[in-house]
Amino acid sequence: MIKCAFYLAPDGKLLDQLGIEQIRNFLATGEGLLWVDIENVTNEDAELLSNVFCFHSLAVADCISKNIHPPKIDDFEDYLFVIVHGINYHIDSEVVETTELSLFMGKNYLVTSHDVPMRSVSSMLDRVRKDGRPMRRGAEFFAHDILDALVDNIMPTIEEMDEKSATIEAEALHEPKRETLISIMQLKRSILALTRVILPQREIMNGLSRGEYALISERTQIYYRNIYDHLVRIEMLTQGLRDMAESVLSTYLSSVSNRMNEVMKMLTLIATIFIPLTFIVGIYGMNFANMPELHWRYGYFSILIAMAVIGISLVVYFRRRRWL
Amino acid sequence: MIKCAFYLAPDGKLLDQLGIEQIRNFLATGEGLLWVDIENVTNEDAELLSNVFCFHSLAVADCISKNIHPPKIDDFEDYLFVIVHGINYHIDSEVVETTELSLFMGKNYLVTSHDVPMRSVSSMLDRVRKDGRPMRRGAEFFAHDILDALVDNIMPTIEEMDEKSATIEAEALHEPKRETLISIMQLKRSILALTRVILPQREIMNGLSRGEYALISERTQIYYRNIYDHLVRIEMLTQGLRDMAESVLSTYLSSVSNRMNEVMKMLTLIATIFIPLTFIVGIYGMNFANMPELHWRYGYFSILIAMAVIGISLVVYFRRRRWL
Amino acid sequence: MIKCAFYLAPDGKLLDQLGIEQIRNFLATGEGLLWVDIENVTNEDAELLSNVFCFHSLAVADCISKNIHPPKIDDFEDYLFVIVHGINYHIDSEVVETTELSLFMGKNYLVTSHDVPMRSVSSMLDRVRKDGRPMRRGAEFFAHDILDALVDNIMPTIEEMDEKSATIEAEALHEPKRETLISIMQLKRSILALTRVILPQREIMNGLSRGEYALISERTQIYYRNIYDHLVRIEMLTQGLRDMAESVLSTYLSSVSNRMNEVMKMLTLIATIFIPLTFIVGIYGMNFANMPELHWRYGYFSILIAMAVIGISLVVYFRRRRWL
Amino acid sequence: MIKCAFYLAPDGKLLDQLGIEQIRNFLATGEGLLWVDIENVTNEDAELLSNVFCFHSLAVADCISKNIHPPKIDDFEDYLFVIVHGINYHIDSEVVETTELSLFMGKNYLVTSHDVPMRSVSSMLDRVRKDGRPMRRGAEFFAHDILDALVDNIMPTIEEMDEKSATIEAEALHEPKRETLISIMQLKRSILALTRVILPQREIMNGLSRGEYALISERTQIYYRNIYDHLVRIEMLTQGLRDMAESVLSTYLSSVSNRMNEVMKMLTLIATIFIPLTFIVGIYGMNFANMPELHWRYGYFSILIAMAVIGISLVVYFRRRRWL
Amino acid sequence: MIKCAFYLAPDGKLLDQLGIEQIRNFLATGEGLLWVDIENVTNEDAELLSNVFCFHSLAVADCISKNIHPPKIDDFEDYLFVIVHGINYHIDSEVVETTELSLFMGKNYLVTSHDVPMRSVSSMLDRVRKDGRPMRRGAEFFAHDILDALVDNIMPTIEEMDEKSATIEAEALHEPKRETLISIMQLKRSILALTRVILPQREIMNGLSRGEYALISERTQIYYRNIYDHLVRIEMLTQGLRDMAESVLSTYLSSVSNRMNEVMKMLTLIATIFIPLTFIVGIYGMNFANMPELHWRYGYFSILIAMAVIGISLVVYFRRRRWL
Repeated sequence: MIKCAFYLAPDGKLLDQLGIEQIRNFLATGEGLLWVDIENVTNEDAELLSNVFCFHSLAVADCISKNIHPPKIDDFEDYLFVIVHGINYHIDSEVVETTELSLFMGKNYLVTSHDVPMRSVSSMLDRVRKDGRPMRRGAEFFAHDILDALVDNIMPTIEEMDEKSATIEAEALHEPKRETLISIMQLKRSILALTRVILPQREIMNGLSRGEYALISERTQIYYRNIYDHLVRIEMLTQGLRDMAESVLSTYLSSVSNRMNEVMKMLTLIATIFIPLTFIVGIYGMNFANMPELHWRYGYFSILIAMAVIGISLVVYFRRRRWL
Repeated sequence: MIKCAFYLAPDGKLLDQLGIEQIRNFLATGEGLLWVDIENVTNEDAELLSNVFCFHSLAVADCISKNIHPPKIDDFEDYLFVIVHGINYHIDSEVVETTELSLFMGKNYLVTSHDVPMRSVSSMLDRVRKDGRPMRRGAEFFAHDILDALVDNIMPTIEEMDEKSATIEAEALHEPKRETLISIMQLKRSILALTRVILPQREIMNGLSRGEYALISERTQIYYRNIYDHLVRIEMLTQGLRDMAESVLSTYLSSVSNRMNEVMKMLTLIATIFIPLTFIVGIYGMNFANMPELHWRYGYFSILIAMAVIGISLVVYFRRRRWL
Repeated sequence: MIKCAFYLAPDGKLLDQLGIEQIRNFLATGEGLLWVDIENVTNEDAELLSNVFCFHSLAVADCISKNIHPPKIDDFEDYLFVIVHGINYHIDSEVVETTELSLFMGKNYLVTSHDVPMRSVSSMLDRVRKDGRPMRRGAEFFAHDILDALVDNIMPTIEEMDEKSATIEAEALHEPKRETLISIMQLKRSILALTRVILPQREIMNGLSRGEYALISERTQIYYRNIYDHLVRIEMLTQGLRDMAESVLSTYLSSVSNRMNEVMKMLTLIATIFIPLTFIVGIYGMNFANMPELHWRYGYFSILIAMAVIGISLVVYFRRRRWL
Repeated sequence: MIKCAFYLAPDGKLLDQLGIEQIRNFLATGEGLLWVDIENVTNEDAELLSNVFCFHSLAVADCISKNIHPPKIDDFEDYLFVIVHGINYHIDSEVVETTELSLFMGKNYLVTSHDVPMRSVSSMLDRVRKDGRPMRRGAEFFAHDILDALVDNIMPTIEEMDEKSATIEAEALHEPKRETLISIMQLKRSILALTRVILPQREIMNGLSRGEYALISERTQIYYRNIYDHLVRIEMLTQGLRDMAESVLSTYLSSVSNRMNEVMKMLTLIATIFIPLTFIVGIYGMNFANMPELHWRYGYFSILIAMAVIGISLVVYFRRRRWL
Repeated sequence: MIKCAFYLAPDGKLLDQLGIEQIRNFLATGEGLLWVDIENVTNEDAELLSNVFCFHSLAVADCISKNIHPPKIDDFEDYLFVIVHGINYHIDSEVVETTELSLFMGKNYLVTSHDVPMRSVSSMLDRVRKDGRPMRRGAEFFAHDILDALVDNIMPTIEEMDEKSATIEAEALHEPKRETLISIMQLKRSILALTRVILPQREIMNGLSRGEYALISERTQIYYRNIYDHLVRIEMLTQGLRDMAESVLSTYLSSVSNRMNEVMKMLTLIATIFIPLTFIVGIYGMNFANMPELHWRYGYFSILIAMAVIGISLVVYFRRRRWL
């Protein structure tokens, strides 16, 4: 479904809501800049891509397929086909998920396609609608602006995960519950999923900034280099998060076992003090005919005192050995 | 055992069930496209491969040997010898197993060989038998179609493993049993086995798509690139599965230990409450002649109340310390 | 905020506290050496960087942004833009943190920018203020001196962490507490954070020492090589620290479990000795009418002796099996 | 000690049991093929190698030293010096050990040296003794045949380890003993030792098959490629074994802890049921003068029934909570 | 402190105990071979290195600094500066430590510097003092001999660690103590420390043997290749040691937990047998007025027999379930 179709004429005039015929005409002129954004691509859009833009059937197939595609870049000489991943803010899942943005970038056009609304694209849409300024510097710059926004939008998620991991750590330390473990596992999986899309994405930006593609002029390369630098930063931060998550997991496991140990120590204390004492009272509960102590005047009281002494000695002994 | 032998003449006529002499003749013309599919290769087939097709003895030996061969590609200039792995849907094992497909690809022929029936080959067989259309674009395209189908057939297994791991995770969390551990171990081993064949397979497709082999024309390379992209996707998904399996294992171990802890806490509760009380009742079971409490009117009732107070205090204390 | 601005004229005269106009003039001459140090950069400084020095807008943006930037080097032909990390001695955190130093190095100027005061820069400031000598060997040497000092200032932190890990190890061995685990985790995270900035920094120095940048003359390269060697040393030491931290963690976990085992052994000793004895005294506490032993003359004493024998035998048995 | 010395003359005549002088003469002709096999090399053999064959002193030193040498290949232009490892079937150890085979390969000779008898060499010896056929295709082919046999002889060990790991897994699951752990550790170490010699060996074969050495003609390279493929297969299988061993170790540890848990649950069941009941009987064993229940007619029977009810309720409760 | 200074004149005459002036003169002739060995370098020696030999100030600084330097090689065209590590036999520590040897190698001189006495250097010193023979083959060979001896001196330490790990394994298996863990940790750290210096050292030898340095003639390269091979062997052995140490750690942890399990089983046995019996004797210790069994003639004996039956049945049941 075409969500928007802009044409910025060489004279700076901006045309909106183009029809397919208009798109075909503007493309043929080879001038100005055309931007078509497709949301939730359908087979009709595939026709536009194949017949009007004449994109390679494999690229079109990748674009309309609902499968997950790792980030990649394909050079078809006349145009570049790029798949990148941003954060999916529209899925309310505990595990961070990424969403794909497909870009076809030619000399005088840019086609973007995505399944769910993307912040980076929609904010660009608003800015273009106002006065078309972001489209004035040509296709390569315009594509850069969208990619830059997409990468920048990853940062808040990183920060969120950072805060979350601090919260989980405190919980793991002071009040480990079964839910804590699930949170740790979800955090770890989010980080790994993020890492997996950021690494190939970084390599794509590296390629774009090193002049591997004829469509990117030397002047623009340094701007792609800047996106690359952002991805390196994100990578460093996710590595830090991964270490944090590992450390939180260790803390959780150790914390759970510490609590268990405390409980066991209490059992031991009670049992080791009262078991011998119970034995002693058992002795004087025996019914032997000839048990002289039983008939002593202060036998009962002596034995109570003796037991108190034994009990206190045991507690002192345990404290000395630091078992309590 | 030759399962099928097709010849698509340059004029578009399709011949089926060729004899060895016919194969030899069509090969000699150097035109059209010949496809021979061998299932469960025997020594007689080896003769066909060595004498009619004149393949190198080492390639023939690899082809007829029943050992496992890692994916590989050998360039014999006149033809390519490729071994790739698909999923073996014919073994009903808990651990995913792969099965080999050997391909000899020449200018005007394709020879496929496999030990068990393969979905990708048999569906192609049905399509060719209808009207020979898949063979019209020549050997390199025809080989691509078979390889593409083989790689696509890996996806359902990935999805199955994904569902299975979700099921196992729920089981590990709520009802960890010894069988759960076995399932986790089998899942991990399946994933690792899959990874081990996908990585070299990806490199083969990379080579085919980068023009390393003279038999693959530039026009076709992008189609092999497409298979490469599919393998990259499968790789990303299996990495996700591996992380999932690791996380499930941690969950299982932690879950088992949590259950044990609950049991131990119950033991501790019962023991720490009743051991002191049993000591007290032991005291008043002693047979000392002089035990004044025994003769108090409400001695018995007082001691019952005292014990109730002690018991309740202990429970309250434990709850406060969050041990229960 | 410009903290200092020096100009060393070709005749060796040193000018301090330059204004923006003076900076612009001295830059235009293309001679002598200009050093501007900016602390806690503001938007006004950005103007100086953009308009007076004419640095690329992306480099200026990196310089004034308060985000974390991984170490990097950008070659703008006329000048190099370098980001390196030193130890942040101004944050009193348990986890070691690094702080950034941005450098713009041209033929006849050096601009340094940092958010917090840095030892390497301020000591250089003092030395320059005295007689300007460090600035006499030109920009590339002067930049080297600052970078060298920055790298050297990492060493005391490494040594501190080394001592700390020895302290923690002793604690883990003799008196493992919950705080010990937290210390180990903080140590590990410090080491990993340090590693993450040192590795790219090393690669920057490697590039500077291998003649990849036209601004660094061959004569100076060996001095950058020397910084590279220092970073290799620091890397080796941090690897040693990482092994140490792993070993301390194992020691801690094993130590905690050893203590628990000791406690459990004590429980077992007490319980296994007294439970059978308590059973025996229970027998003679039964109220059967016909229990001949009860009326034996030395029944009571015999049973006391028998119980002593049983108790001592059990202790001897346990000692033999090395359970105590 | 020279074990055998063959000379196959260009006219196909085979000479056996050559003396040193004969070896020197045949070498000088530069024709035919000479094979000297040395078992358990002595200093006298060193003289043969140094003076008759004129091998470099370092190669001779490596050959006669009894130390372990990792696989390697040295190119001395006139000859290649290769060290490869096979399985040592003559050491009856639980941990698989490898044994070295040193080869000097020249234009018209092959010298093999090993410390213990090797299957691959002795079977070749038998085949040569019959009619000399294996020596007819020249030194490079003859060396290939020996290396191929050596690599093929690794396979049975792999299969043996595979079976062993299945046996150990069953044992770990159903009857974990201390010996099981030792077996797992030995298995892991065997696999790692094997991996360590197979990886460099694979690289040697890769080099031989890629035309890096002038002595290996293009025609023969593909045969060395075949050995390389075998080593890749062995590597894949050992990786599978390694995963298996890891999984067996996890199973063992989990199995041991499961058994312990069962024991602890039994203890908990018995203790939590009888401790409260023992407290109750203790109450009615007290000697208070005024305990009305004691004089009720059915007091005794009521209390027995009450205790039975309590005991059964506890068992039911435990079953409900799945603790039993 | 100069420990020795030899000069071997081109005519084969050996001069000992040279003064600084003599060193300067012999250096100037550019003939013969000069060897200066410095132990525990002081600032005066630095003067010799800087002014007489004219070494680069950075190399001199590295040489006199007491810091740890990772192995490295610097090419100053006229001479090579090499830092390698040997085993420090003079520190009596449980953890293996390495000690540095700095070498300056020129056309006609070799300068060695080390902080503690080194076996490889002092044995060379004795051999030179006798007749100067080791110096006859020139600087590159002489340097090789010292480096070869240094690498060979690592082997005894490897063997020692091998024996030690076998001892520790036996201890871990049969009598795990807290000291065992400390030994394992020290062993692991020694191995890792060794690995860290051997890897860069191997790369240095690789460079020397591949003709990367003009000072090493082609004839000598193969001898450096030999040292490289030794380091590869040492690396393989240390990897084996690392696997061994990992396995010993697992064995230790499992052994400790096995012992604990045995103790717990004993507790369970005693408790589960006597707790029910104690309950029974408690019943007949109750003071109910109406307890018919108490007045049966053989009540006491029947109950004794009943308890014996129950106890034996429990033991049999436990044995059947393999809990004992």
